[in-house]
Amino acid sequence: MSAKLPSSVQTLIDAFNRLPGIGSKMASRLTFHLLRQSDYDVNRFISALDGIRHGLRDCSRCGNIAEAELCAICQDSSRDNRQICVVEGPLDVIALEKTGAYQGVYHVLGGALSPIDGIGPDQLRIRLLQARLDELLEEDGEKSVELILATNPSLEGEATATYLQQLFDPLAAAGKVTVSRIARGLPMGSDLEYADPTTLLRALEGRKSLPPNS
Amino acid sequence: MSAKLPSSVQTLIDAFNRLPGIGSKMASRLTFHLLRQSDYDVNRFISALDGIRHGLRDCSRCGNIAEAELCAICQDSSRDNRQICVVEGPLDVIALEKTGAYQGVYHVLGGALSPIDGIGPDQLRIRLLQARLDELLEEDGEKSVELILATNPSLEGEATATYLQQLFDPLAAAGKVTVSRIARGLPMGSDLEYADPTTLLRALEGRKSLPPNS
Repeated sequence: MSAKLPSSVQTLIDAFNRLPGIGSKMASRLTFHLLRQSDYDVNRFISALDGIRHGLRDCSRCGNIAEAELCAICQDSSRDNRQICVVEGPLDVIALEKTGAYQGVYHVLGGALSPIDGIGPDQLRIRLLQARLDELLEEDGEKSVELILATNPSLEGEATATYLQQLFDPLAAAGKVTVSRIARGLPMGSDLEYADPTTLLRALEGRKSLPPNS
Repeated sequence: MSAKLPSSVQTLIDAFNRLPGIGSKMASRLTFHLLRQSDYDVNRFISALDGIRHGLRDCSRCGNIAEAELCAICQDSSRDNRQICVVEGPLDVIALEKTGAYQGVYHVLGGALSPIDGIGPDQLRIRLLQARLDELLEEDGEKSVELILATNPSLEGEATATYLQQLFDPLAAAGKVTVSRIARGLPMGSDLEYADPTTLLRALEGRKSLPPNS
């Protein structure tokens, strides 16, 4: 079948097909969509791809994607740099920023602990987080730093959160750092009937008392 | 939120987001996937896109995508050029070729009749199909030509099939052309209970008698 397509068309289908979440039918559809587009549109796509090859780096403070030494969030002096939300990747930063409610900063680990994939603490930005905390506490030892563990509610994410909690336990015991974990529970719009037992267990554990009206 | 991302990253997210079937979350995921790839992989994607900008054309006989005057299927002398399957687009050719069962050739209309979108017979490759039939009948007037109408089972596709059936009715009445329409019915693996009434009606209309065993 593939021998019937011009090689340049098959090459682009293959290129799309290599991207995560794009199957062969979707790859064909995207390719034929671009074939119908003007040269201008295809060129725009090419230069967009070209754009990410240069000038991008990891923020030296938090590991988020950046154009300069520091990312836009770390550069923003209006954000509370003593409230640090620890996430696995830059996509998590985007998701949390969309809530519009968080005014602290982030620390992007670059993944989660996964011994089976050879990812231990040294493969993540954990030393950088320790150094960052030390620096903040040196700056002002009286004011505590808040650490919000927002790794994914997956096996690896939970393990990473537990590891970090234990790592910073001495600092927490000394009252220098407060550590919290984002709530696990039923997502909005979901159905209790279809929730898995672990999610329901977390939802029960995380229940909040409602104060009486009036 | 978007102001927080480097502009080159946002530009690529937007470029992916403009493609059909790719939402903003998927576009972010694809972009960050490519950010983690090597320069080699990104370059390979860029050159794949670059490849489709040149050297591609429509087959002058059937309208399928081609690298030369004729597409690979029209060039293939082992295919029966008196059996023509009429489809809306080149993706339909790929789908039919995947069955591995069809040994005829194709005619790619370039869409379906849709007056609301300003697509009439002149916007499709219908005159080319007429000229093609005339030429085949001139070559050998004794042997009839088979026309398989394989436009989509949608409103537009059905209208196009009806239009073509009426257009070639004189040739069919003269026994020069046999016109057929691909079967509409229940797809394999589907559930009768969930089928829509039109599909069920077509399935009933298209029923085949089963000869008695032995």
